[in-house]
Amino acid sequence: MLNNERLMKQIEFIVEIDKLKSIYRQTTLMDETRHENDAEHSWHLAVLAMLLSEYANKKEINVMHVMKMVIIHDLVEIDAGDTFAFDYEGNKDKEEREEAAAERIFGILPEDQRDEVYGIWREFEDRLTPEAKFAAALDRIQPLLHNYYTKGGTWKRHHVTLDRVLKRFECIKEGSEELAKFVEDVIKESVEKGYINK
Amino acid sequence: MLNNERLMKQIEFIVEIDKLKSIYRQTTLMDETRHENDAEHSWHLAVLAMLLSEYANKKEINVMHVMKMVIIHDLVEIDAGDTFAFDYEGNKDKEEREEAAAERIFGILPEDQRDEVYGIWREFEDRLTPEAKFAAALDRIQPLLHNYYTKGGTWKRHHVTLDRVLKRFECIKEGSEELAKFVEDVIKESVEKGYINK
Repeated sequence: MLNNERLMKQIEFIVEIDKLKSIYRQTTLMDETRHENDAEHSWHLAVLAMLLSEYANKKEINVMHVMKMVIIHDLVEIDAGDTFAFDYEGNKDKEEREEAAAERIFGILPEDQRDEVYGIWREFEDRLTPEAKFAAALDRIQPLLHNYYTKGGTWKRHHVTLDRVLKRFECIKEGSEELAKFVEDVIKESVEKGYINK
Repeated sequence: MLNNERLMKQIEFIVEIDKLKSIYRQTTLMDETRHENDAEHSWHLAVLAMLLSEYANKKEINVMHVMKMVIIHDLVEIDAGDTFAFDYEGNKDKEEREEAAAERIFGILPEDQRDEVYGIWREFEDRLTPEAKFAAALDRIQPLLHNYYTKGGTWKRHHVTLDRVLKRFECIKEGSEELAKFVEDVIKESVEKGYINK
């Protein structure tokens, strides 16, 4: 098994990232039976990328690039853990922890692929390209749906107020004006139904 | 929320497929803490598609197409359930059950996307294109790694003998001669270590 060094590095990485399946998020499954993990969340985002790219602000967005981005965007949480979006303290040193994680985890790969995956991750984090902005929008819409369909979900459990929800979702319009309008409606309904407190 | 019919169908589909996270496979996580589900498995395959496409028999394979294929390939199991690869009885009516599932689940989407997703799924199942052959190879390599790194995994639990393992993995070479060689080595080592019985 050891006579192809390049392939062995790739396999080692594939084995290492199995751990993403054990990184649990605040969000639950839509049937509320348990918390969702990062691997499932990433898979769900890939489907969103496939199906919703027509709503991206940039016409003819590079869908494959968005898919790659959402598939690898949470790998750093294998070391850094999932930092709840509304956890002020935890978000202070998030960047530092995730940078170290990226170096270790992506560093398992052969150099060219390490650089490629690091670049895709950095692009997602910097949120400057149309693809990264759209990926970030999807990354917010998926848990929004979970919260809406579980009648409040993490918003209720963590007493997240409307102003914080609105702030969190502000960036969606940078990726998709159309999906931002949809999100606005969902939030309005969530307030009316008592899923979000004012 | 209901004034955009097309988007509402897409959202309904996105909500429906959350159920894939509750379809458990025979394979366990590499740390053996629990069984793996189809959503995580599909995510893992997408990473394999990203990283291992250089080994596909067809040079310049359409990686995005492979990624789309592995991301949606198991959705039919929401209705049809996971049929264990080595379950002879269960595999008899598998095709029929999965076809009905495809019609119901993909039918939630707007027509054009229903046809697209159905086409991608059908292509995966028919295993005739280079992309489908490569996707099928990945779909076998991922559980092979799980079985190897859990010292036998489902092979041991279900007393799967070498001849059946070899038959199951035969198709890998259609997608990738190079990965088939790697798999041959892993199987050889697995027999030596007692993970597979002769």
